[in-house]
Amino acid sequence: MTKTISSVGEDALVAAIAGSCSRIAPRLIKGMGDDTSVTVQKSGMALLATTDSLIEGIHFVRAHTTPYLLGRRCLSVSLSDIAAMGGRPLFHLISIAMPPDTPKAFISGLYKGIDACGLEYGSCLAGGNTASLPDRLVISSTVFGEMDKRRVVYRSGARHGDVIYVSGRLGDSALGLKILQEDGPAALTGRYKDAVAKHLNPAPRLALGAELAKGRLASAMMDLSDGLGIDLGRLCEASGAAGRIELAKIPVSPQLTHYAKGGLLGAAAFAAGGGEDYELLFTSPVSRAKGIAAAARRSSTSITPIGIITERKRGRQTVTFLSEDGREVDLPVRGFQHF
Amino acid sequence: MTKTISSVGEDALVAAIAGSCSRIAPRLIKGMGDDTSVTVQKSGMALLATTDSLIEGIHFVRAHTTPYLLGRRCLSVSLSDIAAMGGRPLFHLISIAMPPDTPKAFISGLYKGIDACGLEYGSCLAGGNTASLPDRLVISSTVFGEMDKRRVVYRSGARHGDVIYVSGRLGDSALGLKILQEDGPAALTGRYKDAVAKHLNPAPRLALGAELAKGRLASAMMDLSDGLGIDLGRLCEASGAAGRIELAKIPVSPQLTHYAKGGLLGAAAFAAGGGEDYELLFTSPVSRAKGIAAAARRSSTSITPIGIITERKRGRQTVTFLSEDGREVDLPVRGFQHF
Repeated sequence: MTKTISSVGEDALVAAIAGSCSRIAPRLIKGMGDDTSVTVQKSGMALLATTDSLIEGIHFVRAHTTPYLLGRRCLSVSLSDIAAMGGRPLFHLISIAMPPDTPKAFISGLYKGIDACGLEYGSCLAGGNTASLPDRLVISSTVFGEMDKRRVVYRSGARHGDVIYVSGRLGDSALGLKILQEDGPAALTGRYKDAVAKHLNPAPRLALGAELAKGRLASAMMDLSDGLGIDLGRLCEASGAAGRIELAKIPVSPQLTHYAKGGLLGAAAFAAGGGEDYELLFTSPVSRAKGIAAAARRSSTSITPIGIITERKRGRQTVTFLSEDGREVDLPVRGFQHF
Repeated sequence: MTKTISSVGEDALVAAIAGSCSRIAPRLIKGMGDDTSVTVQKSGMALLATTDSLIEGIHFVRAHTTPYLLGRRCLSVSLSDIAAMGGRPLFHLISIAMPPDTPKAFISGLYKGIDACGLEYGSCLAGGNTASLPDRLVISSTVFGEMDKRRVVYRSGARHGDVIYVSGRLGDSALGLKILQEDGPAALTGRYKDAVAKHLNPAPRLALGAELAKGRLASAMMDLSDGLGIDLGRLCEASGAAGRIELAKIPVSPQLTHYAKGGLLGAAAFAAGGGEDYELLFTSPVSRAKGIAAAARRSSTSITPIGIITERKRGRQTVTFLSEDGREVDLPVRGFQHF
């Protein structure tokens, strides 16, 4: 018989989770097992905190991933927010609301993924919460990070003339999601398996974010969770500026080019409109181009300049996309709308 | 027409929430509106962090409360965990997963309650997350607090001979819940309205918790969320001890006594078995009785000794309840089982 969460019980579940997770943090005084986690504070350092949820049926389909990958993704999504400030992760709290008949093996696999991802990026489980939810699984992660408080990079620092950069390649996550929706689990090993892997297991760009912050190279930064169109709009709003993107410059993978049959607009719709890439979007004065390139090399992360910050003008769109011949293009999709 | 969350949109919702909340924290560098919250760390102080969720249909029924009270309760439940360590709250992150047709007025009311509760106890909104969930509302709170790291009170410090105390009165929350389930919204103004109010709007015992920690008066402490039977069992497990409670000593309200028609066992079943009282459960050596009484006075919180910590014995129950004539009693309900 399959062991379920209801047959194991809450206290035994929590004990099993606590026992299976790595303790890598010298700053952790007390992790799971008490009312709150207890950690050491360090003066002069800013504390960063962020929280995200993955909801079954909205953000993932259980049959389209593995518990391990789901665990990794859950933590990565929040680690990506720490990366976007230029921070270093420290601890995470994980909350799970789940149907009582959830197999214990599923939850064990999930925490293995969370733990492996945490080990890789330097974050360790400090606590959390479990609850019963009849309809679906909801996994929430809260990640704490820190950094020199004088070097935090916000969304609001972009200035007229700054170059707009992105890390990695855009659109693969949206492509992977589409293929998963069309082909189900077969997508994991099919023609577009790399795009599917990017969707299921995004890598938070912590090394790049930290390098950019350390060298004061980025004027504004955020991570791409809802799509370039929406997210660049937010960065521009916060900065009181506007942004112009050249579609042909957006870095896309060979898989996405193949899927779009070489068509620029087709690939761009995924790349500019698709969410959940968890790449970094940042701006920097032209004069910092050399430093930016060096930071990318040191963090072994590819970066690409894709456009420019412009002046905000009344009645004009905040974000515009230009085709190869310089015309403004209206993209069919402009990102993930939560409601 | 009623404005819903889907008609307002995510960014406008977040902006409205950010605009409506108090900024009372000098330690907050950046709250809502960026990828993470940014706060100041203080050396020598332990950082406390805790997270909880209220799930519609499991932890609350929308028609049985108001958005304002629901907001207060959501934050209070986590503040209670900070109280249980002896800490002082600093910041909170609030995450809401909700159906797209949720009225905007409901969410505004909810945040008003969260904000009022935060103001009262010294915690301020630092960030959060919103997501769409078709079936029901899920509200999650993460609260950060801090305290002198040499004075944190854990669950694990109870020793043989220590006196077991509780704050306030037990069982009213369970009674209030029962009346709400039987009478619906009419319960809010009925015969047992004080018990109902305790269920819907529990008060975190922050002042008492801080006094006990400051004076190193409590050997072990936790808050009562799942019922005295289960929670004392956890405290004893963590301390490698056992506990004996005299049922007649458990403090109960006149409302509960009335409901139980003066019967000790009936009242005790609510008081010892009912969850969500959010009172403090703590232990202390007999020699500290005077200090304990003074701490209770200074924090204007009633406390009651209800039993004693005993030695753990193989094959014996960890927690035992004694009736007035000294016999061991098996209570019909032993607390809230999550699964």
